[in-house]
Amino acid sequence: MIFRTIDYFEGKVRIIDQTLLPSIEKYLDLGSVDEVAEAIRSLKVRGAPAIGIAAAYGVLLSLETFLKQTVSDPPPFFFDRTNGKAITAGSEPDMRSVRVKLLQAIDILGATRPTAVNLFHALDRMRKIVEREDLDIHLFCGKMKEEAFRIFDEEIETELKMGEYGSSLLKDGMSVLTHCNAGGLATAGYGTALGVIYSAASEGKKIDVFADETRPLFQGSRLTAWEMMKNDIATTVLCDSAAASLISSGKVDLVITGADRVARNGDTANKTGTLTLAIICSKYKIPFYVAAPLSTFDLEAETGAGIVIENRDRDEVVLFQGVKIAPSGVRVYNPAFDVTPASLITAFITEKGLIYCPFDINIEKTFSAGE
Amino acid sequence: MIFRTIDYFEGKVRIIDQTLLPSIEKYLDLGSVDEVAEAIRSLKVRGAPAIGIAAAYGVLLSLETFLKQTVSDPPPFFFDRTNGKAITAGSEPDMRSVRVKLLQAIDILGATRPTAVNLFHALDRMRKIVEREDLDIHLFCGKMKEEAFRIFDEEIETELKMGEYGSSLLKDGMSVLTHCNAGGLATAGYGTALGVIYSAASEGKKIDVFADETRPLFQGSRLTAWEMMKNDIATTVLCDSAAASLISSGKVDLVITGADRVARNGDTANKTGTLTLAIICSKYKIPFYVAAPLSTFDLEAETGAGIVIENRDRDEVVLFQGVKIAPSGVRVYNPAFDVTPASLITAFITEKGLIYCPFDINIEKTFSAGE
Repeated sequence: MIFRTIDYFEGKVRIIDQTLLPSIEKYLDLGSVDEVAEAIRSLKVRGAPAIGIAAAYGVLLSLETFLKQTVSDPPPFFFDRTNGKAITAGSEPDMRSVRVKLLQAIDILGATRPTAVNLFHALDRMRKIVEREDLDIHLFCGKMKEEAFRIFDEEIETELKMGEYGSSLLKDGMSVLTHCNAGGLATAGYGTALGVIYSAASEGKKIDVFADETRPLFQGSRLTAWEMMKNDIATTVLCDSAAASLISSGKVDLVITGADRVARNGDTANKTGTLTLAIICSKYKIPFYVAAPLSTFDLEAETGAGIVIENRDRDEVVLFQGVKIAPSGVRVYNPAFDVTPASLITAFITEKGLIYCPFDINIEKTFSAGE
Repeated sequence: MIFRTIDYFEGKVRIIDQTLLPSIEKYLDLGSVDEVAEAIRSLKVRGAPAIGIAAAYGVLLSLETFLKQTVSDPPPFFFDRTNGKAITAGSEPDMRSVRVKLLQAIDILGATRPTAVNLFHALDRMRKIVEREDLDIHLFCGKMKEEAFRIFDEEIETELKMGEYGSSLLKDGMSVLTHCNAGGLATAGYGTALGVIYSAASEGKKIDVFADETRPLFQGSRLTAWEMMKNDIATTVLCDSAAASLISSGKVDLVITGADRVARNGDTANKTGTLTLAIICSKYKIPFYVAAPLSTFDLEAETGAGIVIENRDRDEVVLFQGVKIAPSGVRVYNPAFDVTPASLITAFITEKGLIYCPFDINIEKTFSAGE
């Protein structure tokens, strides 16, 4: 099953509101760049690849909105995949004002969350077109639409390929533990870590999934478990703190997580708690895999020390549904991510295959091979 | 500050309801053995030493209730510390029926929770008196009252001594991470792991405390943070999954937890998540201490494999304040405790001093020295 996590539809960015799952399955139509930015910040849409796509669509939405406000007789939708319309000749807006508007949108979207690198990769791709001087408005609109949808399409294709490569690691009857949600909801719709499980399941392998609940926002129990149930895959939820007990008792064959940013040497930022799992796996000699499309690698970060870690609001930890679970005034430590050193990672699962140690050399090789 | 966690008062067992903290500070007067058993099972009173005391008081309560129902002209209270009354001569009940009643009470209380060994130690002490054939009802009542209050008094004395020994490990300005609640609320009122911190603070040392929130029931954020704030000790709450991030960044000097049962070789059962912390400490070479009164040691368990681990209800994990945080029908893994192997423990803090490696020999020595 490919989830409809994010779509560009009838001139809006349509997302499933992930903060309401699993109780309520509600789609939101975001009509402005500010709404898209707010949805990213508040985790209504989350997961490194999904954030990248949301940002690309957000830039397209900004263009759509600007055209509707400036051209005479605008059609209902400019950029829908199938129903998009060209600008009527004679009502073309000035390219300079278009660029100013779109660079503003890129700035707004780029300021939402600092860690997931896919956001910046996607915005960079959109910016490159915005900055081209050789396009008239008609060609420009075509390129922008093409690039935004291509980011989505490439992502889906990537996820399916990662699934195939990763599935080779899973034998029938194996148990996989995962953290947070690196599934269809975090991506274009299939998933990275969970895509590997879907791929194995589609080959007829029976896989037992253990999902860390993933405090403070329960992406594991709310989202991963929900995805798994939708796909009829046997799943057990546990508190993050119970993973050591589970792994030490021999009930887990391997761990697969996603990634928010992978440095050039293989150090990996991912949802807080990932480092804990990697350390436990190392102690009990359980393989620890990171499923990460190449769009999640940041070759400009030499090591994990170069990755900015987002600290999130205290209320995520001390309030739940408005109920106070800590005394007023207590301090809170709430980093959204931690950095797992490359030395604790068995391999990366990417759309170009598995990347093993030595990571610095093999990551570079994988990127060079793609050029 | 010594907390009034548990008391025997006006013919009732008085406890602070720990499920309502930190929002509501409410005391419950338990009037029957069944009410005491229910309070233990539902964690209204929790923590290995506190459970032991609650059980001893529960047996005394059973005797009090029985006397009130059987003797003529009963006084308002038989066993209050200061206002207890003897039985009027001439209305003595039959010792055999007293014994039957009390052994029933001991069975009910012993079936509440399987892991904390203090429960069984306390009940054994009460049972030994119940089974004595050489006492008439007057002497018997005196001995029962004496033993129940002695269990409490010894525990407080023990905790204060543990605090002194443990405090030697803490230097001014140090940061201590702890898990769950091994404070006044878990004990007779001072604490084991937290007693060490209180003792250091009382000597004028500035200690920074980090409290793992401790899913699923938030004993860290709800109870430990509450105790610390009451004692004006600087405290930061974090999700259990963030401890690796915190420790790896060098912000923690040592970890101290409590224990629910320590085997003869030093393997230690404590709240789920303790094993995780011990593994992380081992990875980053941070000392990992267990504060455990000798009443928490179980010399009949050779190793951790001999410790029964309680599995608790799924709803603790998938519901919060009635709100669903996982899809219906998902499986849940919810062990209340995990077992930390002795090899990951730096030392035990006990009322007889610190116990270092080799634990099997030194634990035995400590017990022999006390005989």
